[in-house]
Amino acid sequence: MAQKPSIPKGTRDFSPVEMAKRNYIFNTIKEVYALYGFQQIETPAMENLPTLMGKYGEEGDKLLFKILNSGDFLHGMTAEEVATTSTGRLAARFCEKGLRYDLTVPFARYVVQHREELTLPFKRYQIQPVWRADRPQKGRYREFYQCDADVVGSDSLLNEVELMQIVDTVFTRFGVRVCIKMNNRKILTGIAELIGQADKIVEITVAMDKLDKIGLAAVNAELAEAGIPADAIEQLQPIIQLKGSTAEKLTTMRSVLKDSETGLKGVEEMEYIFGKLETKNEVELDLTLARGLNYYTGAIFEVKALDVEIGSITGGGRYDNLTGIFGMPGLSGVGISFGADRIFDVLNQLDLYPKEAVGATKVLFVNFGEVEATYCLPMLTRVREAGISGEIFPDAVKMKKQMSYANVKGIPFVALAGESEMREGKINLKNMTTGEQKLVTVEELVEELRK
Amino acid sequence: MAQKPSIPKGTRDFSPVEMAKRNYIFNTIKEVYALYGFQQIETPAMENLPTLMGKYGEEGDKLLFKILNSGDFLHGMTAEEVATTSTGRLAARFCEKGLRYDLTVPFARYVVQHREELTLPFKRYQIQPVWRADRPQKGRYREFYQCDADVVGSDSLLNEVELMQIVDTVFTRFGVRVCIKMNNRKILTGIAELIGQADKIVEITVAMDKLDKIGLAAVNAELAEAGIPADAIEQLQPIIQLKGSTAEKLTTMRSVLKDSETGLKGVEEMEYIFGKLETKNEVELDLTLARGLNYYTGAIFEVKALDVEIGSITGGGRYDNLTGIFGMPGLSGVGISFGADRIFDVLNQLDLYPKEAVGATKVLFVNFGEVEATYCLPMLTRVREAGISGEIFPDAVKMKKQMSYANVKGIPFVALAGESEMREGKINLKNMTTGEQKLVTVEELVEELRK
Repeated sequence: MAQKPSIPKGTRDFSPVEMAKRNYIFNTIKEVYALYGFQQIETPAMENLPTLMGKYGEEGDKLLFKILNSGDFLHGMTAEEVATTSTGRLAARFCEKGLRYDLTVPFARYVVQHREELTLPFKRYQIQPVWRADRPQKGRYREFYQCDADVVGSDSLLNEVELMQIVDTVFTRFGVRVCIKMNNRKILTGIAELIGQADKIVEITVAMDKLDKIGLAAVNAELAEAGIPADAIEQLQPIIQLKGSTAEKLTTMRSVLKDSETGLKGVEEMEYIFGKLETKNEVELDLTLARGLNYYTGAIFEVKALDVEIGSITGGGRYDNLTGIFGMPGLSGVGISFGADRIFDVLNQLDLYPKEAVGATKVLFVNFGEVEATYCLPMLTRVREAGISGEIFPDAVKMKKQMSYANVKGIPFVALAGESEMREGKINLKNMTTGEQKLVTVEELVEELRK
Repeated sequence: MAQKPSIPKGTRDFSPVEMAKRNYIFNTIKEVYALYGFQQIETPAMENLPTLMGKYGEEGDKLLFKILNSGDFLHGMTAEEVATTSTGRLAARFCEKGLRYDLTVPFARYVVQHREELTLPFKRYQIQPVWRADRPQKGRYREFYQCDADVVGSDSLLNEVELMQIVDTVFTRFGVRVCIKMNNRKILTGIAELIGQADKIVEITVAMDKLDKIGLAAVNAELAEAGIPADAIEQLQPIIQLKGSTAEKLTTMRSVLKDSETGLKGVEEMEYIFGKLETKNEVELDLTLARGLNYYTGAIFEVKALDVEIGSITGGGRYDNLTGIFGMPGLSGVGISFGADRIFDVLNQLDLYPKEAVGATKVLFVNFGEVEATYCLPMLTRVREAGISGEIFPDAVKMKKQMSYANVKGIPFVALAGESEMREGKINLKNMTTGEQKLVTVEELVEELRK
């Protein structure tokens, strides 16, 4: 055990400075969620495996962290049986619980389990870690936080409008310029119908979604590979390459999709949403936006930072049957999810953390010894009573060590009391930035620190 | 999957109201920690099993939740090997990670792993869930939060004083009357030496610790059973039954322990701590206080609520070699841990949650239809810009349903705009408690809601 301990790959410790920054992000998001009437819930880290299995595709099932049953997990299985059973089946025998993979499925489970207690529409937010047994790589972790807000039990498009306004408010507060891209699954369905490829909707949207990353030629190649006939790909070109303002795009799509009921419904929804939205940031219709998950049924959105090269930092959409998987059909929902880790990187790169958010202690009382410390303690109490964070260095060690502590911790003021200060009933307040010193009474001390 | 979903036993969902209450508790504790210069860290939910194993005794090892390795966890084990390996060993082969059992061991691991980045003394706090495969029972969960603060790298007793003041401030803010009980492991060691039973210190303290619960006769019986001779038990009686003020007790102990260097050191430490402490709540020396864990080496403390029948709601103490288990000896630490679940119960029983802490949305705009909603939206925006949380009911459903939503969610004001209000450019504000209605402009609305 003398070897230096470590943590599992793909997981992280968060230092005080990182935590202060993360708290700033989470608190900002929480405040805005609350401003819009969303309420927080929490669900357990562990869910019963049947709750999680089959919800994220075959690949997702493999990425679930499973928890070994306590005690005799073999439960009467013979060694022979163990040796002849597949690993996947064995895991299911040995484990009845797993760590949550996202916040959406636990939320659906929550809604169904607590349906009698809930008043609809239910506007909840949830900020908790999730775990995925993914191959760790730069920017991808096995434990990371999600910050989700969803409304269930209301079909109104006002919910979409409000969620977009939440996004707008949050990034305005962060000082990050973003573009909110929106699309609608119904429009995509209309397009697939239009070119006679309704059964290929998934392939078409997945390919179109990559336009930004791989370019038009590669998208067309992918469409062909997916079995879309050349003439259908041809028909798709004006749509993939559609330019102009959102209003122009919607007008074009209204005429292009005139024979698709679903497609027109999608156009109407987007007209409503764009008509109601008032944002400080750019909002645009992006017909190549598809989003990976296939449970979305209406509006979908994604947020891009304008001043940093990074993937989508927030996303979401409308899904019409989230709770159906738990036997409660017909409940529509719409939600967003802020990508905390990427937002953290964006704020770091743009250096946008407010000083107060990261600052810790305001004043350190230097400890010159028993008598001086005893003199300082009531002053320190007074400072704290005024709501100002303060510390006294606990040991009467060398001044240099104490000053270095203040420096490293970013403490902006140091208070010193020696014989002469004690005689006058005052204390010397040193500004660590300017070096300036002031002899002050305890009340003046509080005033100075309040500034 | 049509059967109603559930969560693993011993775990909990937290509803919006429960979350609001828990946040009030956590935020109060966080604020006070910060006021005293403590900084937050977080560690991963999963630790490598060697970090956790052997740290909590044999029983503790069994209570660790272990995580099945991803993929082929059998890793080539033959049926023969499986058959001849114990369940415990198999678990160790199948799992390399486990969920954290407390915050103390991960903190020790953190300090050792990051020692180069840390400036001592390191004052950290940490509020995260922990997991134990305990038999679930009333008030005992398999997932629960701990709220720890520790100082490492300083021997100064000022740290003990500060931690007690944190406890005093937190419970004063909660409005809960408590008694802070303190003792010192060195005094207990001195007592064991005094009666010639230095090797029986654990048995003696464990028995003495039970005085409150089982009474004197049973404590003496337990001591006898532990092999303490009758004359030694006899010698212990005045100490177990010692009455009087803390000052009187310390004076007595100083003379009783005059031949034990360790014992006298303990008395001195307590004299110093009690001499410096200024608290609003009772603080007393309780010689029967031992606390279960054996790693404490100096002062120990425990907090009892005075107005609710419940076990200790906060505890802690000084330990001199926390990081030794990870190969970094000689680092002294002292810490406290607030019992969030019990504090939650205490505040519930005494009904001490401030109204603002639990309240959610301040105003609900009733939705009478498209035109009215469109009229209301800019007013709602204005309300939110003023930092007041507001909602509009997303669907234009029956008034009764909307009012019931406001009631259930505890929204104190409802805003209504029909034809006449729109003509005047005003809105009707209804106080849901008094039933009073007022026709107001948007600025008056903000003013009213601010009150």
